[in-house]
Amino acid sequence: MRAIIYHVATSLDGFIARKDGSTDCFIESGEHVDDYLNQLKDYDTTIMGRNTYEYGYQYGLKPGHPAYPHMNHFIVSDTLSFNNSHEQVQIIKRADLCQTIHQLKEQVGSPIYLCGGGQLAKQLLKHQMIDELIIKLNPILLGDGIHLFDGCCDGFQLDHLHRINYSNGVQMIHYRMQYITEEVAI
Amino acid sequence: MRAIIYHVATSLDGFIARKDGSTDCFIESGEHVDDYLNQLKDYDTTIMGRNTYEYGYQYGLKPGHPAYPHMNHFIVSDTLSFNNSHEQVQIIKRADLCQTIHQLKEQVGSPIYLCGGGQLAKQLLKHQMIDELIIKLNPILLGDGIHLFDGCCDGFQLDHLHRINYSNGVQMIHYRMQYITEEVAI
Repeated sequence: MRAIIYHVATSLDGFIARKDGSTDCFIESGEHVDDYLNQLKDYDTTIMGRNTYEYGYQYGLKPGHPAYPHMNHFIVSDTLSFNNSHEQVQIIKRADLCQTIHQLKEQVGSPIYLCGGGQLAKQLLKHQMIDELIIKLNPILLGDGIHLFDGCCDGFQLDHLHRINYSNGVQMIHYRMQYITEEVAI
Repeated sequence: MRAIIYHVATSLDGFIARKDGSTDCFIESGEHVDDYLNQLKDYDTTIMGRNTYEYGYQYGLKPGHPAYPHMNHFIVSDTLSFNNSHEQVQIIKRADLCQTIHQLKEQVGSPIYLCGGGQLAKQLLKHQMIDELIIKLNPILLGDGIHLFDGCCDGFQLDHLHRINYSNGVQMIHYRMQYITEEVAI
């Protein structure tokens, strides 16, 4: 069974982006970035919400094209459509989210990179579908923005797996999600 | 000049309490708690918002009495009043906040313990009055609640001073606030 790994930069106050989705507030150079780019190579599949995908447009991403050339993309949206969709890019309707994710997890392949954002992460957490959480904790405060999880349920604990402390103050902290109750209906 | 230290437990997603102010979600035993209780002995003065103070009532705190017997208390509120106020407990009106804090910082004494909550922390951060931040980062997710800072301004960076990793997954991380722009008018 492939793991879904929510792998994301956070501020000390728990935000993964400013309110407008921008992420240039995070420390964008250093050893932690090199490690992150290397870790991305290990994922062959990514799942993300529409806002997260479309945020790439300002960096040259073309609608319907993969944001990460070596990954298959599953974009969760009821309203998104493309004129020309690349074979590596599929749109998942919200109603089909659980079924699609179950199928994806049963396929042979790498762990699945949950790219964000907080709304999708919350949905997947409620369905107990997130297996691991890797945060790149940046020594910054945003005060406002997009939350790591846009609300979430109880019924799990985080088991610490691994931590790297970088000299620039960033920490990479890796947890396994341990679900301790039955799935919560939503 | 006495430092103001915002010393507070946070979840991984940046909350210092649930929405109702409760904090029993944080890990309440272990070496990090012993260390925290020892650190509290080093403060002779605390400043907190009304909600933070009144949260103590359910644990037996009597209105007007000190929450920490060895500290002088400054409670920021325009509406709070006590029938009988202990000599260690004073109420500060919001309009007098800056002046009172300036005076306090110039007095001889220990660093000042900023106990919370997020609204007061934001006000003090905007006035560049917080000197250090100590977070007890708990390996939990709340999804919603009271933010570490209830919104904040730019114009500072966090210099990492010290970190303790506890075996239960809690981290104590200590930062110095480094203000890099002029104070923002509010």
